[in-house]
Amino acid sequence: MPKNDKPPVSRRSLLKFIGATGGSALMYDTMVAMGYTGTSDFNGPIKLPGDVKGASVLILGAGLAGMTAAYELRKAGYKVQVLEYNARPGGRNWSMYGGDTYTDIGGVTQNVKFAPGLYFNPGPWRLPHHHHAILYYCKLFNVTLETFTMTNYNAYIHSTKSFGGKPIRRREIDMDFSGYVAELLAKATTKDKLDVALGKDEKDGLLQILKFWGALDKNYEYRKGPAASELRGYKVDPGGGLAPLPVDSDPLPMKQLFTSDMWMFLEGRSYDYQTQLFEPVGGMGMIGKAFGQQLNGLIKYNCKITGIQQDGKGVTATYIDTKKGGAPQTVHADWCVCTIPATVLSQIPMNVGAPMKNAINSLSYESSFKVGLQFKRRFWEEDDGIYGGISYTDQPITNISYPSTGFFKNGPAVLLGGYGYGNSLTDFSFAAMSPDNQVKAAVEQGARIHPQYKKEFDNGVAVAWHKVPFTLGCAGSWTEEGRAKHYNNMCAVDGRIVLAGEHCSRLPAWQEGAILSSLDAIQRLHKRVLTA
Amino acid sequence: MPKNDKPPVSRRSLLKFIGATGGSALMYDTMVAMGYTGTSDFNGPIKLPGDVKGASVLILGAGLAGMTAAYELRKAGYKVQVLEYNARPGGRNWSMYGGDTYTDIGGVTQNVKFAPGLYFNPGPWRLPHHHHAILYYCKLFNVTLETFTMTNYNAYIHSTKSFGGKPIRRREIDMDFSGYVAELLAKATTKDKLDVALGKDEKDGLLQILKFWGALDKNYEYRKGPAASELRGYKVDPGGGLAPLPVDSDPLPMKQLFTSDMWMFLEGRSYDYQTQLFEPVGGMGMIGKAFGQQLNGLIKYNCKITGIQQDGKGVTATYIDTKKGGAPQTVHADWCVCTIPATVLSQIPMNVGAPMKNAINSLSYESSFKVGLQFKRRFWEEDDGIYGGISYTDQPITNISYPSTGFFKNGPAVLLGGYGYGNSLTDFSFAAMSPDNQVKAAVEQGARIHPQYKKEFDNGVAVAWHKVPFTLGCAGSWTEEGRAKHYNNMCAVDGRIVLAGEHCSRLPAWQEGAILSSLDAIQRLHKRVLTA
Repeated sequence: MPKNDKPPVSRRSLLKFIGATGGSALMYDTMVAMGYTGTSDFNGPIKLPGDVKGASVLILGAGLAGMTAAYELRKAGYKVQVLEYNARPGGRNWSMYGGDTYTDIGGVTQNVKFAPGLYFNPGPWRLPHHHHAILYYCKLFNVTLETFTMTNYNAYIHSTKSFGGKPIRRREIDMDFSGYVAELLAKATTKDKLDVALGKDEKDGLLQILKFWGALDKNYEYRKGPAASELRGYKVDPGGGLAPLPVDSDPLPMKQLFTSDMWMFLEGRSYDYQTQLFEPVGGMGMIGKAFGQQLNGLIKYNCKITGIQQDGKGVTATYIDTKKGGAPQTVHADWCVCTIPATVLSQIPMNVGAPMKNAINSLSYESSFKVGLQFKRRFWEEDDGIYGGISYTDQPITNISYPSTGFFKNGPAVLLGGYGYGNSLTDFSFAAMSPDNQVKAAVEQGARIHPQYKKEFDNGVAVAWHKVPFTLGCAGSWTEEGRAKHYNNMCAVDGRIVLAGEHCSRLPAWQEGAILSSLDAIQRLHKRVLTA
Repeated sequence: MPKNDKPPVSRRSLLKFIGATGGSALMYDTMVAMGYTGTSDFNGPIKLPGDVKGASVLILGAGLAGMTAAYELRKAGYKVQVLEYNARPGGRNWSMYGGDTYTDIGGVTQNVKFAPGLYFNPGPWRLPHHHHAILYYCKLFNVTLETFTMTNYNAYIHSTKSFGGKPIRRREIDMDFSGYVAELLAKATTKDKLDVALGKDEKDGLLQILKFWGALDKNYEYRKGPAASELRGYKVDPGGGLAPLPVDSDPLPMKQLFTSDMWMFLEGRSYDYQTQLFEPVGGMGMIGKAFGQQLNGLIKYNCKITGIQQDGKGVTATYIDTKKGGAPQTVHADWCVCTIPATVLSQIPMNVGAPMKNAINSLSYESSFKVGLQFKRRFWEEDDGIYGGISYTDQPITNISYPSTGFFKNGPAVLLGGYGYGNSLTDFSFAAMSPDNQVKAAVEQGARIHPQYKKEFDNGVAVAWHKVPFTLGCAGSWTEEGRAKHYNNMCAVDGRIVLAGEHCSRLPAWQEGAILSSLDAIQRLHKRVLTA
């Protein structure tokens, strides 16, 4: 399916690119052709009927794909065991808390110093309302969800190249854009300059909506005035009693707006990011923990897989216990669900056929980095009136995302101080720095939007995904050609082995993709088992 | 200030009107001229310096205006007493819980039967992030706030007159509108049919943004395809592994869309309703309760004021204890802050000058009704994937608003099953019915959007504000002329009496207006006291 071939990270890169280059870029068609999306085809709990006659399944990886497989296969009567590289369940489903340590492939260890109750999600951080599978498991496992605020009209849009580098409230960019668009189109409509023939009722209808939507005046113009202020905010807000009279705000100049590069926020319009979104109370990692509790005793942690071999009777995996050390050990089962990312899997000897092997070797991974910053107080709330949501900048940090929880609390808080993505862009120069320097750079760059950063900064942590030992990247990055050639081979059962994970789905980089991939894989594996 | 004269209820009526009449109405200019807004000029805690020498203040009404006055004046050294009509603090700040009873002016009593933990706000229900004064007091009094979801792209837009009366997901209306607008304007731009001269860079910039914003294809057309699906949703969602391929959805026909009346949701674009919004955990009434706790012992409940008389030395109020009965009693103080709504106040003998008296008598009040419905389960979440937010309909119920809290919970839940506003519209025919019949009608009308209503309905309660004894209306409804003539007289200190409440603010119908009005009034009263 060449029309749905591109992971969100690339889409995000593109958005950033559009943002960074303003009116001069023309990469948009590519994106439309790619047609990335991140919705879900989950239709309720999986059913795996039939007698599996004590068959055993070895599951490699205790991320969401692996743990979904383990949970459902055990329920279907399989003997299940899971080997996991980390000392915790979840994989990329991961929250960092004070007291945690993290060591990257360069051997650099960070000690997380967040205050009690605070956290940072280095990986996934939001759950669309239509990601039915992950929401189903959250409910099943009693993971409490709260609203994640993606779009905040009071957050900032910042470009070093537009409007003198001054951060501008999103609502001003957004509403001035619609105002000018409405004005231009309304005038073309009234003067019969449209490319299509509209009847009188249709024209009247369009004009009415444009007027209301774009806050136009009676001349169909978007101008400084109470209608525009009602959308973009006032210069002096209305008050009570005999307080000073309200004063209208000044719209941004149209031509300057059209040639600006303030459009990164438009990503929030896509179905993936439309309200309602959720986050688990206490951090995204609560989902991995909840899965892990369900599978208590089934998961063996600290296992580095060094080989996967199958024959006509079963699958044997070789692993090293990274904690206890010692000689390589083996584990055997009738079947295997392997959720190890292709980056890592391509380096592990495994006797599958050329089609799957080529698929694994062909898939490159996007990178991305995230920086979590603890500040002494919620100055973004107290001083800027920003509660949740995202500010956008054309600097490498790209996003500043404010916590969607704990509003109005006193004391320290952690925000997402940077989220860079897209391997063609600036993130490698950023992510190539030491974690300490990434944190410093994030504070430096963020201070251009929030001058309070320097005074209020407390501590931070930085995760660059190409340096994360268990993934060596952020998410599978399918090209259109790559998916056409390799995707089906990647997903097909090879002998007694089936792969699963976000890289085996049409929702790459999403946890939903990992779970859907797993559900699809084990359904096909189960059929194979019953007919074996 | 004739430019800011209209309460939100009228604005809302207008929106409904636009919704109801589609392309044929031309009331929009009126609204722009009115320039209603609901922002706030609060700039931090009030200061009332100086020695008040034991002066006493009588405060009439323990709504948010009255209790703000009581709290701040006590802090400034005044002897304060508050008389309140109801048996509870809060006034229109009010949540109904199971076990509560409510009797309207027609003598009809409703017994609220909601399950424990569930509530319904008959009055205000949302707090904009820029309503700094009420947010300040929430923080000060430890009222925990959570996200209120106003805009939900997965909620429904329903019109009995458009698209065959079929409810349509908001994202489809919204995104198809922007798609067609982008297409029409992009074509006018490429063919140099715009009314203004745009340079090459500006044109390129505009086209880029339109293409991305409106999901246009390479011919600048908004058509069925992956780009459109990414905004408006897919017909068959993408899945994991070898699940069926995704299928694009079909945009609504342009001309049918432009002549439809599906635009009620545009109200969500205004500054008042932009993210972030809040609600108190446990119901809006938690704010009134928190104020009430602060003023423990100062508020005398069940007092119906029957007269307010001032002379050179002080103010005397006469009241009846509606609970204990007996002869009218009096209470005396040096000064008086009166927060009784003008509807009620105009019926109470009070010796103020003609300017204030005329102002009080001139102000009419908007009405509105709200219906709270308890259902046996959250079918809107479980079946429809709607978590919080508002569905809009052209039926009298106007809004269905889903709870922004308790997501995914099992068991019963309460939603806002109707919120009618605007006295020129249908609400009186609806609100004139008995509460029981209002509840029945709300179920009937809601079932056109959610067929599950009939099976899942449990119990309900209806509040029509023109029948609420302590307000006889929803909120002050200033006309442009009325405000020009009377507003300053309404707010000015008259001898020893000053009025406060949302009706004495430029944010009518908002709790923020009540508090700002109170803060402004007591500052001016305090100056008068110090110089008296």
